[in-house]
Amino acid sequence: MSERPTEKPEFGPTRRGFLRASVAGGALVATGGAAFAQTPDPLITEVQPWARVFGDGIDATPYGMPIRFETDVIRRNVPWLTADVTSSINFTPIHALDGTITPAGCGFERHHSGAIELAKEDYRLMINGLVETPLVFTYADLERFPRESRVHFLECAANSGMEWAGAQLNGSQFTHGMVHNMEYTGIPLRLLLEEAGVKPEGKWILVEGADASSNGRSIPMEKALDDCLVAFKANGEALRKEHGYPVRLVVPGWEGNMWVKWLRRIEVGDMPWETREETSKYTDTMADGSARKWTWIMDAKSVVTSPSPQMPIKSGPGPVVITGLAWSGRGTITRVDVSMDGGKTWHEARLQPHSHDKALHRFYFDHVWDGSEMLLQSRATDSTGYVQPTKNALRAIRGLNSVYHNNGIQTWWVKSDGEAENVEVS
Amino acid sequence: MSERPTEKPEFGPTRRGFLRASVAGGALVATGGAAFAQTPDPLITEVQPWARVFGDGIDATPYGMPIRFETDVIRRNVPWLTADVTSSINFTPIHALDGTITPAGCGFERHHSGAIELAKEDYRLMINGLVETPLVFTYADLERFPRESRVHFLECAANSGMEWAGAQLNGSQFTHGMVHNMEYTGIPLRLLLEEAGVKPEGKWILVEGADASSNGRSIPMEKALDDCLVAFKANGEALRKEHGYPVRLVVPGWEGNMWVKWLRRIEVGDMPWETREETSKYTDTMADGSARKWTWIMDAKSVVTSPSPQMPIKSGPGPVVITGLAWSGRGTITRVDVSMDGGKTWHEARLQPHSHDKALHRFYFDHVWDGSEMLLQSRATDSTGYVQPTKNALRAIRGLNSVYHNNGIQTWWVKSDGEAENVEVS
Repeated sequence: MSERPTEKPEFGPTRRGFLRASVAGGALVATGGAAFAQTPDPLITEVQPWARVFGDGIDATPYGMPIRFETDVIRRNVPWLTADVTSSINFTPIHALDGTITPAGCGFERHHSGAIELAKEDYRLMINGLVETPLVFTYADLERFPRESRVHFLECAANSGMEWAGAQLNGSQFTHGMVHNMEYTGIPLRLLLEEAGVKPEGKWILVEGADASSNGRSIPMEKALDDCLVAFKANGEALRKEHGYPVRLVVPGWEGNMWVKWLRRIEVGDMPWETREETSKYTDTMADGSARKWTWIMDAKSVVTSPSPQMPIKSGPGPVVITGLAWSGRGTITRVDVSMDGGKTWHEARLQPHSHDKALHRFYFDHVWDGSEMLLQSRATDSTGYVQPTKNALRAIRGLNSVYHNNGIQTWWVKSDGEAENVEVS
Repeated sequence: MSERPTEKPEFGPTRRGFLRASVAGGALVATGGAAFAQTPDPLITEVQPWARVFGDGIDATPYGMPIRFETDVIRRNVPWLTADVTSSINFTPIHALDGTITPAGCGFERHHSGAIELAKEDYRLMINGLVETPLVFTYADLERFPRESRVHFLECAANSGMEWAGAQLNGSQFTHGMVHNMEYTGIPLRLLLEEAGVKPEGKWILVEGADASSNGRSIPMEKALDDCLVAFKANGEALRKEHGYPVRLVVPGWEGNMWVKWLRRIEVGDMPWETREETSKYTDTMADGSARKWTWIMDAKSVVTSPSPQMPIKSGPGPVVITGLAWSGRGTITRVDVSMDGGKTWHEARLQPHSHDKALHRFYFDHVWDGSEMLLQSRATDSTGYVQPTKNALRAIRGLNSVYHNNGIQTWWVKSDGEAENVEVS
């Protein structure tokens, strides 16, 4: 308690008194609604146990974990999705997060042959092929190069893929959780390629991981020299094992499969390699059975993370914060609109003031909910002017055979009891 | 390996071949130095164990921790600093981090009576005193208010305090590690105060925590209505227990002690409370024994995090990345200069392109080290034009009795063997 005696608290309206408030133009305005009945609350009238004793000391958690009340905010997999968990996907709990940074501990994983353990001392990166001087770098070598730190999203090409055919998984974690957003520190790939000296005929690179799958992907030289990072830190600390410790590639705005983990080798060539990962996988099968290739860029997309199936409205009618994430592989997000009637009418949401290129953006729309059903949607516009399409607009062009690159508008049906379901609107 | 056979790697220069390079103007330029002798490296000529077997599946770590090789990147306390760990400080491992975001798991802690465990269901926030309507909010109530997400640094007023008298602790973690930088999500405090209705005579607030210490602090109304947040998330997820779960105050740019954790009560008054935490503590004792009061704002400051005593140069002469952090409680950082000769000459460092108000900034200076001794310093300039002073300039004004608000320039003596020590230069 403070050293100066304070007046006895006057308990006017109860803890729900502020529900009188309604939101207009982002500011709360009292509307003079009814005050709720006053109920004595021992949590404010009595000294609580936690104010009577000491808590944990500063030696309790040299590296801390979330409090035990938050153990449901974790990555989750969908067991039926793949035959084996070493070659599968789990999902970021985006429904329960806010802001834009994804903590590494709950940032989505995808492995093709499991997460390997590779010590810095055992790490080597080779650059070979059409270069003047083939090179092999140790981790200590890489630490000597100029570095940059930038926030970028990583999204799996298959994110929302199960929605193509209307799987309607119940939760933004499962429909949109193959995404995370971290501050990466690394070396511009351009500098390493310049060090080796790319020959004039070198137009592509092959990037390859040290795990059993190797996960080889071709990247055009123009992108390699643009904004790719050979990264060793994420959110300030060393990459987590499951995110490619000690070194992964960052390919801003491009599909996550190209962000090769445990990066082992970069080969310079004069044409793409047409690996398994870019032919039988990570191409888009069209309605006629042909395959759309080299669809690397993740187009503008958004999703309402709350309310959503995993985040029902529990407090009944009144003010509710409608919030979500938006991102674009082509730049920044300039606008997000929210609809509560399945796309008939739209309302501009508030975007947070900081906006990073090819990074997650957070949006908020402050709404006074009257308890009636909502068909909740969000729609992103990016810095190129591109507007996120409906799922049906995508299907009209690409058919129903696709798995990858579904950036269509998501709909949550919020019912009168606050529960929400994944639905489609025509 | 890739599907397409690749040519046999030609091993030209060895893994140290790139040491031929020197840095000029931020770009690597080959200088034609001697190539090192070629040594066969089984790590690149043989298939390694981690490429022969599967790694961990995606169910291995629903919430992940750093890899076991990084167990030294943790918060550390200094046992002799205080009598008891429930009322003490530990330090962020800033020497080992990069970028600007501090992962919550290793973000510095300070408690006055330990970290308490307070469930959301048991949480109440009272606003009383000179208000039209005293209010008590539950956690669910707070979730209904409009929110913002912003990156801010938190720095303890006592950060670098032991350096006033020249303690010269060996490591940036110990000299400057009472700081962290996270993306906070919360409600503008202004909205909650407007909800209660501040009376015209209300010029100050008292903020108080739910722990035994209560840690009451007075904040002028102008700051309360400006940019303070009643925050419930940091780096996207719920606040950690040790950072005030479920709700703490964020007071951007002001000393960390005011960022009250487990925020329980906000009282509006017409004058400051003069609590213990703002009279006997958190004031600056001047040379004549008088106390400088209300020194809330953390002035512009910077430190080289690597190389530093905990991060010696291990690879010998050649390119080295000199990097560190800079911040200001008055705005953004517009420039950081680095000196290698104890402040005689200065070189402008590279600042990362993203710059948040009252947040940590990362700087890099790419240097080719010739192996001679360095007296390494950094000097920050903020958006008000203020330039970080030397320690002696501060001492000339404030004497040697201070504990708090030491933002003086730090010097590391980097010796020829790459080891570094904390030293003072006159």
